[in-house]
Amino acid sequence: MASGNLKNPFGLNMAELELNISVDCVLFTVINDKLQVLLTRFSPDFGYALPGGFVRKKEDTDHAANRILFERTGVNYIYLKQFKVFSDPKRFSFEPMIERINQQDAMQVNVNQLPERVISVGYFALVNYESIHPTGGEFSEDSSWMDTEELPDLIFDHAAIIAEAAEALRRELYFKPVLYNLLPERFTMPELQNLYEIILGKSLDRGSFQRKMIRWDIFERLQERRTGVAHKQPFLYRFNKEKYELAVEQGIRFVL
Amino acid sequence: MASGNLKNPFGLNMAELELNISVDCVLFTVINDKLQVLLTRFSPDFGYALPGGFVRKKEDTDHAANRILFERTGVNYIYLKQFKVFSDPKRFSFEPMIERINQQDAMQVNVNQLPERVISVGYFALVNYESIHPTGGEFSEDSSWMDTEELPDLIFDHAAIIAEAAEALRRELYFKPVLYNLLPERFTMPELQNLYEIILGKSLDRGSFQRKMIRWDIFERLQERRTGVAHKQPFLYRFNKEKYELAVEQGIRFVL
Repeated sequence: MASGNLKNPFGLNMAELELNISVDCVLFTVINDKLQVLLTRFSPDFGYALPGGFVRKKEDTDHAANRILFERTGVNYIYLKQFKVFSDPKRFSFEPMIERINQQDAMQVNVNQLPERVISVGYFALVNYESIHPTGGEFSEDSSWMDTEELPDLIFDHAAIIAEAAEALRRELYFKPVLYNLLPERFTMPELQNLYEIILGKSLDRGSFQRKMIRWDIFERLQERRTGVAHKQPFLYRFNKEKYELAVEQGIRFVL
Repeated sequence: MASGNLKNPFGLNMAELELNISVDCVLFTVINDKLQVLLTRFSPDFGYALPGGFVRKKEDTDHAANRILFERTGVNYIYLKQFKVFSDPKRFSFEPMIERINQQDAMQVNVNQLPERVISVGYFALVNYESIHPTGGEFSEDSSWMDTEELPDLIFDHAAIIAEAAEALRRELYFKPVLYNLLPERFTMPELQNLYEIILGKSLDRGSFQRKMIRWDIFERLQERRTGVAHKQPFLYRFNKEKYELAVEQGIRFVL
């Protein structure tokens, strides 16, 4: 069974990998007014999981996160932000994996070469689901968006990783309100507020919200209003990207 | 040279360690109006370094950070916050270390058992230097506070780790203004502002600062004033710990 050139289930040379260090990528989006997350099913199948995998010996974890997201989902060129390390010695075990792999007779695994534990570095991003196209990638795999409030059973500690990523996303909005990527070019204040409420997971006071948005001075109010809505037609706004980027650079805190 | 029971320079059994995963601890304090950081000198001596070391196979990185800080500096029971992983494949090399160790003939090292790279998980804390007593710890070592603006040459990427930790500390203050640990029980607004300015590394407007502090509603103004100062005698304040903890819990953002 022993071999210096073992193949892992994903076609990679195990000798190239840090088998005790992985990355997991949490891609968030908003669909149907729900905060959703991109999940995959591994091959061989262990159930729903975040797109993740082992770091190569000659790459940093940022590179690993981008590479692995692409390999598993076909999604490329996303800014992924590192947010936390998950290192409970019992969070991960190769055992169930080895069992399945050996059942499927897909590879030879020398169990003695595998580490007892795997530490994972978590990455997240908030993306416009219309701008990315999960194809399944090189090695796998069904990718699908799932409502964070109705997640299926996930492998290992992936449910906890998603919960921590959502918290990191909420914190990040204070420093850089990246959610503008999810809005159409022209939007109303109620639409912006709705998006904030979905991501923050709480209701916001309408008057206070709009005062803060105007104080940030990163939007332009257009002459047009949203038509086709039942009551008062709200004004349309758009981001002023120059002002926005200047505000981020100057360290403005986008606190609600 | 080969042995399954190698000792590393710090007296630990190398077989118990994840030799490709370390932690580094950045302890900040303020002394003489300067943001200072606790540095050690390793034994064998490689120069100034953060207190750091390898994660054990059966512990998580939080545990490793606390254990290692204690072993290297004698400092215990500090809340250390994980802030970032440093994973450039070229950030660390065992080579200079092995050379020194072999020169000192202190141990037998089988170079083939060492990984090509080490990923480090960074932790930080802001502490009152009067409340902790770096003794040198079990394995080392001179520990000393050094001004972050006048650091000596540091090993590996430790200068970059300190810079990132300082940024993480500044961000953390928005969520939890832990700097109250550095103040005497009774303090003036100018003293509090001075402390913020040292940590944030910038001047703040006095009027705006005091309005914000009062709006946070976590201080009590006492009847007494600070005496022995040249001009107008400022009022003394103290933290109201209950209000402070409630505010943190309610998610108040302490933005300046």
